[in-house]
Amino acid sequence: MTVVVVGSIAFDAVKTPFGEREKMLGGSATHFALAASFFTDVRMVGPVGADFGEDEYGLLRDRNINTDDIEKVEDGETFFWRGHYDYDLNVAHTDDIALNVFGEFQPKLSQRSKDAEMLFLANIQPDLQLEVREQCAAPVLAALDSRDLWIDTAKDALVKAIGAVDLVFMNDAELRMLTGEPNLVRGARAIMAMGPRIVVAKQGEYGAALFTEDGFFALPAYPLESVLDPTGAGDSFAGGFLGYLDAHSGDTEFDDRARRAMTYGSVLASFNVEQFGTERVQSLTLDEINERFAEFHRMTHFDAIPIEAGR
Amino acid sequence: MTVVVVGSIAFDAVKTPFGEREKMLGGSATHFALAASFFTDVRMVGPVGADFGEDEYGLLRDRNINTDDIEKVEDGETFFWRGHYDYDLNVAHTDDIALNVFGEFQPKLSQRSKDAEMLFLANIQPDLQLEVREQCAAPVLAALDSRDLWIDTAKDALVKAIGAVDLVFMNDAELRMLTGEPNLVRGARAIMAMGPRIVVAKQGEYGAALFTEDGFFALPAYPLESVLDPTGAGDSFAGGFLGYLDAHSGDTEFDDRARRAMTYGSVLASFNVEQFGTERVQSLTLDEINERFAEFHRMTHFDAIPIEAGR
Repeated sequence: MTVVVVGSIAFDAVKTPFGEREKMLGGSATHFALAASFFTDVRMVGPVGADFGEDEYGLLRDRNINTDDIEKVEDGETFFWRGHYDYDLNVAHTDDIALNVFGEFQPKLSQRSKDAEMLFLANIQPDLQLEVREQCAAPVLAALDSRDLWIDTAKDALVKAIGAVDLVFMNDAELRMLTGEPNLVRGARAIMAMGPRIVVAKQGEYGAALFTEDGFFALPAYPLESVLDPTGAGDSFAGGFLGYLDAHSGDTEFDDRARRAMTYGSVLASFNVEQFGTERVQSLTLDEINERFAEFHRMTHFDAIPIEAGR
Repeated sequence: MTVVVVGSIAFDAVKTPFGEREKMLGGSATHFALAASFFTDVRMVGPVGADFGEDEYGLLRDRNINTDDIEKVEDGETFFWRGHYDYDLNVAHTDDIALNVFGEFQPKLSQRSKDAEMLFLANIQPDLQLEVREQCAAPVLAALDSRDLWIDTAKDALVKAIGAVDLVFMNDAELRMLTGEPNLVRGARAIMAMGPRIVVAKQGEYGAALFTEDGFFALPAYPLESVLDPTGAGDSFAGGFLGYLDAHSGDTEFDDRARRAMTYGSVLASFNVEQFGTERVQSLTLDEINERFAEFHRMTHFDAIPIEAGR
């Protein structure tokens, strides 16, 4: 089984209260692909410039990520983002942005990518998301992520793109903004009325909530004492989630699998933020992933012993 | 086993986007006592005025709450609060407040109350909290709640009161404010360094987190589609939590019981906000409580199946 991700590939310069880096591999497709690569086959689709070299390809290939559909534009430069976080690590401040080759990106998927079982449309312009979705044969599951920028500037296109996927990942504030529903349960229902059958509300330091036709599930975030760099947490979450689902597509009931997928997503996101950029996920092992999964189980588990006699 | 609560008893006038009430029984001690009354014996300590009549006493006694330590000041009036909520139901706006008899409150506990196994110091002036704590023989567990007002105006007294209890309930924003730690894990640890061995961070619509010496537990809030009136949610949570713990003091490991207590607290808080004031909790049944407890279990449970082979 294979997951295809279409999104940005970037160089990031990031400063947080805990340190800084001048140039790291980043971008939504990168963070997603690295996280998903622990579970299943991953193909990345996105543009890079001449400055994207063997070091970067090597980092991806070390994790067995297929880079055939990374489009190298020899007379361009890779998307660059410079940003910082203050003590409120939930808010990214953009200091400089150069779209470069990403500005003219027209996704072209190889046949192998078009035939993939799972498709993740990372946070890009919603018309492009829809275009990619329509190029794909019939993935078992197509998902998208989006953000406030597109709700503000391309809401109709976003609603159309949402109508063409099975699953939406979005921050809960953005879900509320898009649907106009202050209540998250109603907001999720409003997204489902647009087409998707699964909604994942990302709640940052509070965890994430899953809405499906059959039920509701919520998981706290891992209680980290220090977060060094939150960049890429959401995409790592999506990568862990869809990577796990892709690798375990028929084992059990969908909702059971989706709950474990939520947990693997949270595991990958929690590792991602422990160091800058992709540093922590690059060095991650399967044992560490399983150990943290077990910790998530321990910190959320309780026995259901109903009270026998009330007063 | 008995829980004693010391706090406000009030008449509330509340307006939310979903309706309004001109005069309802309210106050932190009231909400706490009603919630705890489903689990154990409850004694209320607090002042009321001449306007506090048989209807109000009746409402409490219907739930078997002991009112012997409610001090009736015949030439005074009961604490009155008028407030409203806008669409962001997390923020209460105070429109009018009259402390009345609550302004001169000097808690006097009967011997029965002083000997109770469990003590809850609801959100009152921290010097009073400490005074009450020192009147009590040696409760198995003493807990307090507080809020931003006391962090701003009586921080030293609050830190002293915290040092005299076993458990602190506080909103996570207030925990951060009090400790100066933006990170919740470190904030909880800082509270524990003041004395308590248990910290419960209330996170509103995101649920609640429990920090003990042995571990961490977090539970999402119940996914309600409509919240009519959030007044008293925090005290109902504390009431369900401590009421359950008091009734099941020696069954199993403390952490196991505390996790179920978190869940019963969340159950009571979720019912509390479904209607105005105490309306929903007054009509609540044990079956409804157990049914919602089971729903909490279903919506947080997942099987721990580690992935066998990564890539």
